[in-house]
Parts: sequence; structure tokens; C-alpha cells
Amino acid sequence: MTKQAPIAVIAGGGDLPGLVIRSALAQGRDVVTIAIKGEADASLSAFNPVELGWGQIGKLFSTLKSRGVRDVVLIGAVQRRPDFTSILGDFGTMWRLPRIIAAVVGGDDHLLVKVAGIFEREGLHVVGAHEVAPGLVANPGHVAGPKPDAKALSDMELAIQAVDAVGRLDIGQGAIAVGARVVAVEGAEGTDAMLERITALRANGRVRSKGAAGVLVKCSKPQQDLRLDMPTIGPQTIQKASDAQLKGVCVEAGRVLVVHRDEVERLCNELGVFLYGCTRNEDFEGHEG
Amino acid sequence: MTKQAPIAVIAGGGDLPGLVIRSALAQGRDVVTIAIKGEADASLSAFNPVELGWGQIGKLFSTLKSRGVRDVVLIGAVQRRPDFTSILGDFGTMWRLPRIIAAVVGGDDHLLVKVAGIFEREGLHVVGAHEVAPGLVANPGHVAGPKPDAKALSDMELAIQAVDAVGRLDIGQGAIAVGARVVAVEGAEGTDAMLERITALRANGRVRSKGAAGVLVKCSKPQQDLRLDMPTIGPQTIQKASDAQLKGVCVEAGRVLVVHRDEVERLCNELGVFLYGCTRNEDFEGHEG
Repeated sequence: MTKQAPIAVIAGGGDLPGLVIRSALAQGRDVVTIAIKGEADASLSAFNPVELGWGQIGKLFSTLKSRGVRDVVLIGAVQRRPDFTSILGDFGTMWRLPRIIAAVVGGDDHLLVKVAGIFEREGLHVVGAHEVAPGLVANPGHVAGPKPDAKALSDMELAIQAVDAVGRLDIGQGAIAVGARVVAVEGAEGTDAMLERITALRANGRVRSKGAAGVLVKCSKPQQDLRLDMPTIGPQTIQKASDAQLKGVCVEAGRVLVVHRDEVERLCNELGVFLYGCTRNEDFEGHEG
Repeated sequence: MTKQAPIAVIAGGGDLPGLVIRSALAQGRDVVTIAIKGEADASLSAFNPVELGWGQIGKLFSTLKSRGVRDVVLIGAVQRRPDFTSILGDFGTMWRLPRIIAAVVGGDDHLLVKVAGIFEREGLHVVGAHEVAPGLVANPGHVAGPKPDAKALSDMELAIQAVDAVGRLDIGQGAIAVGARVVAVEGAEGTDAMLERITALRANGRVRSKGAAGVLVKCSKPQQDLRLDMPTIGPQTIQKASDAQLKGVCVEAGRVLVVHRDEVERLCNELGVFLYGCTRNEDFEGHEG
């Protein structure tokens, strides 16, 4: 990362781009905010963004060059896959079209890797949000809320094993263990839906415990390119973990974004849900709090 | 298995016990049907069952002995975990109580293993439904419906890998791959709920394909004791796979029960969903139909 040059944050939807921009500014970085039209949140107007649509890729690169940008963060949700009519935009878009079409056709992971390749062929470096906003990831060990007890640490270890197994197969990033048993593994549904499933399974008696028990574990996949796609938790994750009567949430330290950190920690304390940072293959036996 | 001696089918709820009894009778075996009170289906009355409650364990063993039973099949759902008041039953229950309490306390898997142990200490053999009713499991290869194409075989292979990984960790028995991506892994929710999840994820666009695509794979866990607990599919599985716009269903040959086989095959043909029997670690590349 070049310290002096400004970084560009190319912002999709949600509040994550704003958090990354604020965190980068707090580190003394200059930030050029590019808001993707129809995707980026209106609150980004505070950062005086350049608004660009899918067809303005020529203008995107000329803007980044004129501002002296070398590092680019791609962050936020993109709901709409661009269609080809909106891509037939400016001249700079036109001559890059073959590469862009090649990127748009194909699976999601390939798309992001190819998009990053397009940036790199323009001489730009795609960097991860955690590199410009290190305050958004968890440290290893106990982070917030009550301390995990031995049963919770043991459930955590089981769920880490499960996440590890499905992560290696590029399936998912999350798992939940309750009472020494893995009860949910995350697929395409996402973490929130998986937590809601446990709430439902508790209601119908398929997952049982006396009082709160169990842990949600969320890790990145070993082969995951964190510059392009990072697992994320936030206050909603803590709330839903509490609804599912879990004891806590464990995220891989340094490799999972924790957004709205203050609110996350407040909720952990208020709801009695711990937040813990783990590293893979860590032996939890000795960490009993 | 002793050919001449009658087998006992100790029947919990659902229609599986009746199917096993019918299949065993069709093989020329004598069957003593024990219907668990409050659990077994009323349709078992066709087999002239001995009805026994949780507190009649003494009577259970005396009945099995007087009928010359050596092989016992435990089959069907048990909704109610017996409570201790109902267990304080006959004299034969009383003196076995310490063992029974030890069995009832603890996780589900342990419970079944311990229950089997109680039978074996009475000189009985607990056998699997597939051993007395081999017609209830699938053979390897194409079973019903259209032939799987190359994409379906490739999705099948991916889902088998996922089931294998979670099976080794004793998590679940099922997974679904669509479009070269594992989109769901089964936990405590069960196969039907997992299929319904894919139907919902298709509706909200998180799982996409042009037309039907993808395969549900269901296997036993490598360490699973098939005498006590076998994965099962039936007509509902085929219907829900069709609702989820899958191309087919793949079960581990010899180790997954296919109930209501005729109806399953009719639905496969009617809905255009294939049924395939796989063996673990099989190379599907060469099986393109």
C-alpha cells in the first residue's frame, strides 16, 4: 500500500462502505469515494462522492488516474447484475467491453476475480477493507459480552471444525453447534437465515437445551480472496444469535468484518452474548475463561 | 440372521414399520409386531400387533422369548422421550431400570446405542431394516426418472463431497448442489426443510438456474449404525426436489431407505426428477448417460 496516495472506495449498497471510508479517514488516508449509481447508500453524500453508473467505466478509470489513486477498495452489496444495455456506455467502457463481458459471464467468485483483474490491468491495486480499516476486524480471544464457559468453548471448537470442512469445499462460512452437536451449516442462505432456522428448530423442539447454549462460528474460507469478499457480522448477527438462544458468536480474528462495532459490543453486554475472535486450528481446551 | 426364527419389529410412528413388516413377510419371514403405545400407526393392526407401553419392558422381553424371536428391528419415529413416571411399570421394567435410566439420559445417538445394548444383553440381535427388507434400499446407478446429464452428474459429485465432509463430522446426511456450487448442507433441520429452503432461495434469487438444475444427495454417515437409524427418502422427497427445481435425487446405494418405492418411481417419471444410487468415492465422470 502506498501511504501518500489517496485510496478509492468503490461503494455498493449498505452501510459498510461508509464505515470503511470513515475508518480509513481516521487513519489519515485521503479517500476518493466512487458511489455506484442505484446501489450506493445516500448517506455517502457526506463524503462528496463521484457517482458513476455501470456504463461509465471509462470515466471511472480517468477519475482514478486524475486523482492519483493507486489503491482501490471494492465494498458493499451489488444487487443488480449489470445488463448489457446499461454497459454500452461511454467510450472507455466500449473498448474494455470484451474483458467486461468475460467478467460478467460466469459464477460470482469468478466475476469478482475478473473485476479485480480489470483494475490491475489499469495499474491499480485492489486491497481489502481490513487493510485500510483494521479497526473493523476482531482481535483473537474474548472481545465482548460474558466470558465463554467450557461448554461454549467446546461447541465453538466443533463449529470451527464444521466451518473448516465446508470452507475448504468453498461451500460456506458459518456453522452453529449447540450441546456438543453441529446443528446448522451455512450454504447459500446466509448467516441471518441460518440463525433464524435455529430459532425455528428450538421452537419445534428439534434443537433443545436448558437455557441459552451454543455458538455461531463465522470464518473466511481458506482460499477466499479477502480483497473482494469478506465475511461480515454486525448488530443484527448478535440480536439473531440471542433470538436463537446461543451463548455467543465467534469470528475468525483478522478475517471477518465486525461492522458497527460499538453497537455490537453494547448488544453483547445487554443480551449476554459473547463475541470471541478465533484463529483456525486453535486448541480451545486451554482457553477456559 | 437366523432364517427360521421369527423376527420382531418394534414399531414406532410413521408408515415405515408397516413397509418393513410387509417386505419381511414377502421374503417369507415370520414377523412378531410390537406396537409402541402412543407411537405406532393404527394401520399396524393388520399385523395383529402386541401393544406395549414404555413401562412394559418386562412384558416385551417375555413376549419375544415366548415367541422364539432372535432378531429385532427397531423402526419408526419416537416422538415422546419416555418420562420416568411412565417407566415405573412392570416388574421386568423395574429391575432393568438402572440400565434404562442410563440409556435415557444422554444424547440421541447414545440412547439408541444403549437401547441396542439392552436388547443384546437379553440375547437378542438388533438388525437393520435393510437386512430384513432389502427391497427398501436403492441399487447403484440409475433407478428411475430421466437419465442424469453431465451437469447433473457433476453437481452430484460436488454434493457427495459435501455430504462426505459433514458426515465424517457426524453433522448431517444431505447436501444440494446447483450449477457447480453446493448451496445447502443439512443440519438438524432435516432433508425436507433443506429442500424447502432451496425453493425459497430460488424465489428470492439467491439460487439461480435456467430451468431445473441441481441434485440432492443423501447418504448415511460413515460411522452410522444402520441397525438403529437409517436415512430415508420417499415420495415427499421427490415432490420437494421437484418444487426446488432440482434435476434429481441421489441416495447412497444400500444405505438409504427408499419408502413407497412404486410411488417414488411414478413421481420421478411424472415430474422428470431422476433417482440415482451412488456409492461413496465413485468417479462419476465416466457415468455420463
